Amino acid sequence: MNLSIIRYILGWVLQFEALFMLCPAVTGLIYREYRAALSFFGVAALCAVIGFLFRRRYPKNDALFLREGFATVALSWFFLSLFGCIPFLLSGDIPNFVDALFETASGFTTTGASILTDVEAVSRAGTFWRCFSHWIGGMGVFMFILAILPLMGGYGMNLMRAESPGPSVGKVLPKVKTTAMVMYGIYIGITVICLICYLISGMPLYDALNTTFGTVGTGGFGIYNSSAGSFTPLQQNMITVFMILSGINYNLYFLLLARKFRKAFSLEEVRCYLIIIVISSLLIAYDIRSLYETVGARLRHAFFQVGSIMTSTGYSTADFDQWPQMSRTILVILMLIGACAGSTGGGFKVSRFLILIKAAKRKLTELIHPNLNKKIYFEGEPLSEEVLSSTNAYTAVYFIVLFGSVLLISLDGFDFTSNFTAVTATLNNIGPGLSAVGPAQSYAGYSIFSKCVLIFDMLAGRLELFPVLILFMPSCWKKY
Amino acid sequence: MNLSIIRYILGWVLQFEALFMLCPAVTGLIYREYRAALSFFGVAALCAVIGFLFRRRYPKNDALFLREGFATVALSWFFLSLFGCIPFLLSGDIPNFVDALFETASGFTTTGASILTDVEAVSRAGTFWRCFSHWIGGMGVFMFILAILPLMGGYGMNLMRAESPGPSVGKVLPKVKTTAMVMYGIYIGITVICLICYLISGMPLYDALNTTFGTVGTGGFGIYNSSAGSFTPLQQNMITVFMILSGINYNLYFLLLARKFRKAFSLEEVRCYLIIIVISSLLIAYDIRSLYETVGARLRHAFFQVGSIMTSTGYSTADFDQWPQMSRTILVILMLIGACAGSTGGGFKVSRFLILIKAAKRKLTELIHPNLNKKIYFEGEPLSEEVLSSTNAYTAVYFIVLFGSVLLISLDGFDFTSNFTAVTATLNNIGPGLSAVGPAQSYAGYSIFSKCVLIFDMLAGRLELFPVLILFMPSCWKKY
Repeated sequence: MNLSIIRYILGWVLQFEALFMLCPAVTGLIYREYRAALSFFGVAALCAVIGFLFRRRYPKNDALFLREGFATVALSWFFLSLFGCIPFLLSGDIPNFVDALFETASGFTTTGASILTDVEAVSRAGTFWRCFSHWIGGMGVFMFILAILPLMGGYGMNLMRAESPGPSVGKVLPKVKTTAMVMYGIYIGITVICLICYLISGMPLYDALNTTFGTVGTGGFGIYNSSAGSFTPLQQNMITVFMILSGINYNLYFLLLARKFRKAFSLEEVRCYLIIIVISSLLIAYDIRSLYETVGARLRHAFFQVGSIMTSTGYSTADFDQWPQMSRTILVILMLIGACAGSTGGGFKVSRFLILIKAAKRKLTELIHPNLNKKIYFEGEPLSEEVLSSTNAYTAVYFIVLFGSVLLISLDGFDFTSNFTAVTATLNNIGPGLSAVGPAQSYAGYSIFSKCVLIFDMLAGRLELFPVLILFMPSCWKKY
Repeated sequence: MNLSIIRYILGWVLQFEALFMLCPAVTGLIYREYRAALSFFGVAALCAVIGFLFRRRYPKNDALFLREGFATVALSWFFLSLFGCIPFLLSGDIPNFVDALFETASGFTTTGASILTDVEAVSRAGTFWRCFSHWIGGMGVFMFILAILPLMGGYGMNLMRAESPGPSVGKVLPKVKTTAMVMYGIYIGITVICLICYLISGMPLYDALNTTFGTVGTGGFGIYNSSAGSFTPLQQNMITVFMILSGINYNLYFLLLARKFRKAFSLEEVRCYLIIIVISSLLIAYDIRSLYETVGARLRHAFFQVGSIMTSTGYSTADFDQWPQMSRTILVILMLIGACAGSTGGGFKVSRFLILIKAAKRKLTELIHPNLNKKIYFEGEPLSEEVLSSTNAYTAVYFIVLFGSVLLISLDGFDFTSNFTAVTATLNNIGPGLSAVGPAQSYAGYSIFSKCVLIFDMLAGRLELFPVLILFMPSCWKKY
């Protein structure tokens, strides 16, 4: 393991975090929350100094192989959360360290699970930081760094591979830097359009900005205790549309911009994603017919919740924990599937789900025609055995981490539904679960130990397990 | 698909079922339950006649490829359950058809999930049939047929492969017939030893016989409403030991008989299985310390329940649904893992679990050392890519069937814990789950539709998914 290059890159990450923190600091000044503003300015200065010390000396050996890439990204996300939580402690918004870390990790990983029982009591600077962290984490910190810095010539790919979601890297252009720039460009474009729409619908600027961050980053921290419940039906529908758009594989937008319409509309993953959303929403709309009078309201709530859960955002317009059992079960299954690869959404990913189904179908066909050597095609191209075996390993590790975490947090004595959905909702970066962690509840009831397990799940889930897990392999730390 | 050979073998299966049914019929005569006895004699005659008609003409083409093998086994198990449930209807023990089918499928698949709220009200002949079906299904019907009939020279392997549990077939000897004979010999040996032990412990013959069937077949139908709760501590401990012995890969016994002690004691799967049992039991014994006064009682209940769930038997000495959350979560995870391959136990199987962990570990190592091409070793031999890809496909299908079933039965409105554990307990052939299907409850509350889903899960789980699933592939039914 080349530790010096990791240190060097961590330095950059911390300096960028300092930059990011200036936004909530300024917000604090605008709203005259001087204690909060000072906390953010102070921690920003701290990050800048530590970052400077870390990257003062350029490492002699700047080789960054896959393992360094993975370790760097995993450690960076941990440090981002660690330093990002200090302002909450200093400003008094969240006085407990583990709670603050939970909230910050939940922000950066775009989970949106909160330990706060009253989010409206948080300072405006703090709320801005919570939501802004969704936006930073949505497309990824390294995507940002790679887009603007001339860093790590040939090695950038190993950083991108660790951070970008899905079974294979959606490198749309041959160069890492241009790929990162295009992706961030699209991301900013969607953000601006979303913001304008929210403003037109009548949201005040502050609300619109924070909700945009949460929507486009598929985060889901609400700025009101009722999450998205207090918005008008029009605004709720707008959020639904932008959540669903943000859960789509960004390759689609790239193909649209490149005017490759035929290829764009034939993306299997996106089609499957949209089909799942429509079918689930219609089933739920029918299932909740006794709860809402008009067909419009049923469809609005159903599409909102399905969009929110499937894209791993986590906003809610209603306490879906009170919905009939079938609706809740559909939502749990959507939690497990998640959004598209290459989107800002989390979860297991639709593409992995599709690959597994195709592989299983091939196996069944092989049993019927043993001599037929069938290839698996995905998105029009033969699927490499490498991606297939990665997907299989991912599936195994995913369920082992899931049930292992459920076991660990069961010590707190909550019921199985709460524990299972708490882990599912954090590991897939969704936010609310069912029962004790339902949308009208919070994660405050869990013990410090369980919160640490869930913080691990959020980070492991956002980075898709392997980057975080290799940190625990002794052979990863061996010197060359 | 060669339908005529399937018809022919189904004929044999039905004639064997007729033979099996004579046992409960005679039991009915002994206990002077003439209506029950007559029901069993009548249905036995019916099976014999239909079986005779089915196998009257030997098929011109007796080719039995893998797909015919799988289809034959899947259809045979369905017909076994279908005809096996008729005596319950005629004797009045279970007047509802779907309930009777559920109970019979639960018996043959060694699940032990019951729709009966009062098992002591069933006739003695009926109870005998319920427990005896565990014993028939435990080692498998085709294992029995292959052991005693000179059937299907070279094709028997395709039948054995469909019925025997685990990622690969444990063909201990080169010939299918001798393998089947050895396996059944060991099975009968364990059964006799178990029966003698129960008799020595003071159980009446009828109780001992039925409990032996349920223990050695890892079935779990109780003959008392308290399941195994009314037995003495000594008897409970005996049941624990024999359950655990029955969940062990039968290769171990074969190796011991063949005096290959070194190889026998180095079986990875068995070691892992025993380690999981000991650790889980100790954790649970500690977790339930406030419920039982003595250490002995804690250990007894913990080992009993762990043995019962891990081996997919399903007996209970206590209502473990009332235990603390951690204990219940451990039991749910044990449900998912299951017993050893090549045993009479069900579930996902320890060997698959081990293979997945090894594959995941290899993947992580590959990330650290990309040029290292490491082979996976299992039980001392390199694991073929064929077995690995089968295991992966199995895992994917397993979770799809699991969550799909949970969704379907959620229509009944039971809570998530009940639905999740009901499917887990049937798909893995365990029996009791938690909450509404806990050990003190029954499956009677579910609707007819849900019971049909769970019947499917029991059969699919016992035959390890693929044989049942290929029946639903249109290409399976195409003529050559």
